[in-house]
Amino acid sequence: MKIEIQHGDILTLDDENRIIQDGIVCIDGTKIIYAGTERPKNFIPDKIIHAERNLVMPGFVNTHCHSPMTMFRNFAGGLPLQKWMFENIRPLQQYVTEDEIRSCAKLAYIEMIKSGTTAFAEMYAWADILGEIALDIGLKALIAGSYGKDQGLAGTTEKSVILEHSKKISERSKGRVEEGLLLHALYSVPEDVIRNTVELAKEYGFRIQIHVSETKKEIEDCYEKYGVSPVEKLAELGVFDVPAIAAHCVYLTDNDYSILKERHVCVSHCPVSNLKLGSGMADISKLDKKGITVCLGTDGVASNNNLNIFKEMNIAALLAKGIYCDPTVIPAEKILRMAVKNGYKALGIENSGCIKAGMNADLIIVSTKEPHFTPITDYYDALVYSGQASDVVLTMVDGNILMENRELANCDEEKILAEAKIASQRILSYRS
Amino acid sequence: MKIEIQHGDILTLDDENRIIQDGIVCIDGTKIIYAGTERPKNFIPDKIIHAERNLVMPGFVNTHCHSPMTMFRNFAGGLPLQKWMFENIRPLQQYVTEDEIRSCAKLAYIEMIKSGTTAFAEMYAWADILGEIALDIGLKALIAGSYGKDQGLAGTTEKSVILEHSKKISERSKGRVEEGLLLHALYSVPEDVIRNTVELAKEYGFRIQIHVSETKKEIEDCYEKYGVSPVEKLAELGVFDVPAIAAHCVYLTDNDYSILKERHVCVSHCPVSNLKLGSGMADISKLDKKGITVCLGTDGVASNNNLNIFKEMNIAALLAKGIYCDPTVIPAEKILRMAVKNGYKALGIENSGCIKAGMNADLIIVSTKEPHFTPITDYYDALVYSGQASDVVLTMVDGNILMENRELANCDEEKILAEAKIASQRILSYRS
Repeated sequence: MKIEIQHGDILTLDDENRIIQDGIVCIDGTKIIYAGTERPKNFIPDKIIHAERNLVMPGFVNTHCHSPMTMFRNFAGGLPLQKWMFENIRPLQQYVTEDEIRSCAKLAYIEMIKSGTTAFAEMYAWADILGEIALDIGLKALIAGSYGKDQGLAGTTEKSVILEHSKKISERSKGRVEEGLLLHALYSVPEDVIRNTVELAKEYGFRIQIHVSETKKEIEDCYEKYGVSPVEKLAELGVFDVPAIAAHCVYLTDNDYSILKERHVCVSHCPVSNLKLGSGMADISKLDKKGITVCLGTDGVASNNNLNIFKEMNIAALLAKGIYCDPTVIPAEKILRMAVKNGYKALGIENSGCIKAGMNADLIIVSTKEPHFTPITDYYDALVYSGQASDVVLTMVDGNILMENRELANCDEEKILAEAKIASQRILSYRS
Repeated sequence: MKIEIQHGDILTLDDENRIIQDGIVCIDGTKIIYAGTERPKNFIPDKIIHAERNLVMPGFVNTHCHSPMTMFRNFAGGLPLQKWMFENIRPLQQYVTEDEIRSCAKLAYIEMIKSGTTAFAEMYAWADILGEIALDIGLKALIAGSYGKDQGLAGTTEKSVILEHSKKISERSKGRVEEGLLLHALYSVPEDVIRNTVELAKEYGFRIQIHVSETKKEIEDCYEKYGVSPVEKLAELGVFDVPAIAAHCVYLTDNDYSILKERHVCVSHCPVSNLKLGSGMADISKLDKKGITVCLGTDGVASNNNLNIFKEMNIAALLAKGIYCDPTVIPAEKILRMAVKNGYKALGIENSGCIKAGMNADLIIVSTKEPHFTPITDYYDALVYSGQASDVVLTMVDGNILMENRELANCDEEKILAEAKIASQRILSYRS
């Protein structure tokens, strides 16, 4: 299908950071073939989209989430971490059925689509199912998890099973959805499992997703057990010898920064979750200055309670300034790059994250017509500080329109909402 | 006019915190005359609103803003505070015309209406005009400012002028819009002006709005000049002998907390602005524990960049937990009370802030139909952590519907947006 987007103010996010006012984007199949102001000759679109001088820009990437946790949205909030996780969330997870995982993941994915996310990194059980749902719904994804109900920690799953699933999804998705490997965290996965997972990742080119240095307790326990920091121990175990997304990284030593930089680890900053769980405040200004790739994630909605990159951008930007009591810390344009380009990099997705010929047509249109977005005196500041999820009026992945004018294209929103509600109610009925 | 709201899930925010599921709210003129589940006999509504099991609740109060600063939305972000204020914002303010103030204030007020704010405290020049606009547009307001273009500091305006304007607006508004007195801050207003303002407030029952202890520099300068804290000095000058809204209060001593508590000062917490300007992080948990009335404010959009109490609630709640690394700090229900009941208290508006018979019909309906709001396992957490400005589908003040289904009732949104854009462009054209 050929699509022409007309009259858009295009935030290319290319190397020159060009902003094309009243521009045209032409899409042929999965690719952007033109972005500029001259209508290309001989391009006859099947569909024309009038962007009404709204912003046309690459979609956002959510680099850390546990999607099916939508079942726990707004449940058991405000409790101490251990009580929240081990007395409320974990005991209920055993009752979840495969169908309920489907329902709650679909809810998560449509929330992402409606807030402008075009790709995400998933970390949960039932990874086989989640990959299929992501594919059906049209998003790009890097799925890391155990299979079936097993709340396991990746390496515990048989190598042959992982390879089979990975092959299956890769063939079907043509690269849109890829499998990665999950290591929950250093404190929760046995050393031999970590070593085996790393070997598997090295042999087959899998990416690893792992929680790293999220809480003070984790750091203290690690020093007591190993005499080194979690980052140091994980490096020793080889985890950072393969491309890895390290979620959180709230507490880092100077040596940790050096390791993350040298091993090209992508840090998924999840400011909302870190605040809500009382974990702490990661220092993305320092991470960025050290040359480490920072991207953004929501974590699960049980500790957020949204899957909304606008919110993460806003709070990431505000918090970075707040920590240093310095309004010059991290300009909005850099935050936007974290949410887009760095996200695609973390997921290992090439040719997405900017609007120019040859790139994948992974883009969104953001309405600038609401009072809260008026006037626009700076596009980057407007997106990061004024933008809201509801401003997204079109979401496109690989040239497929997933949402237009707030209506989902490929799925029945009402049905998804109804099924997720029923699933959540049933699961929560087991609470003690 | 008689209005019946049917099938609402009513968050009363009354003393018992009742939640009435599938309830009815009846409004006669400016008052709520019934909230419950039984349809009152003999009540024949002129209009029926089907709430579709969305949330019916009191509207939010924005207790600190400088509305016409919408002209500077997203302008000059990320600069050091002094450079931002004294090299960018202030030099441009001299070019603003009365008509442009009108345009930019209208933009602010419709943004507030569309995000569920029903009352606000204003602090700006042209106070006479702002009061009239608030009244025309239908919001409740406490207006503090200088008159005309004078960027002055309240007490500098002639007493007779203040009294005349106050009388005029009170008569026209029947209490919906009241005038208060502005004192910009201890560091910016001469002592004799502060004393005169306090005398005027005492004599005529005016409320005072003032910036207090916002930045480290302010504290340091104050100690150097007076040897005491800003709160202590203001108390000595009598400012807290009258009802006052103290905006920010980021840096407080133990004695400051005691003074604020004893003098019944309402603290307007503006977390977004405090972070964005690198001012710091106020400790609302401590303020609340000390029994001080904390309410929420956006500050001007030049340092926010929205007028959206959903955002302030969310960030206030997250930040309070983040500061203490403790997820149990400040439950969502308390944050909601800060945004509603404490706000009305700060403005001196009685009989608003809860849904029950006899109260003013100042209420909103919040849609729970979007994916990001599904499922609702806790109403308070859902509002504070999942809710978004765009979820507001109805805003009512004194029984007047100001917005329904995202459409403004009393004003031409497109015209307001267009005029504000032109105003902003012209003013910013003077930037050096």
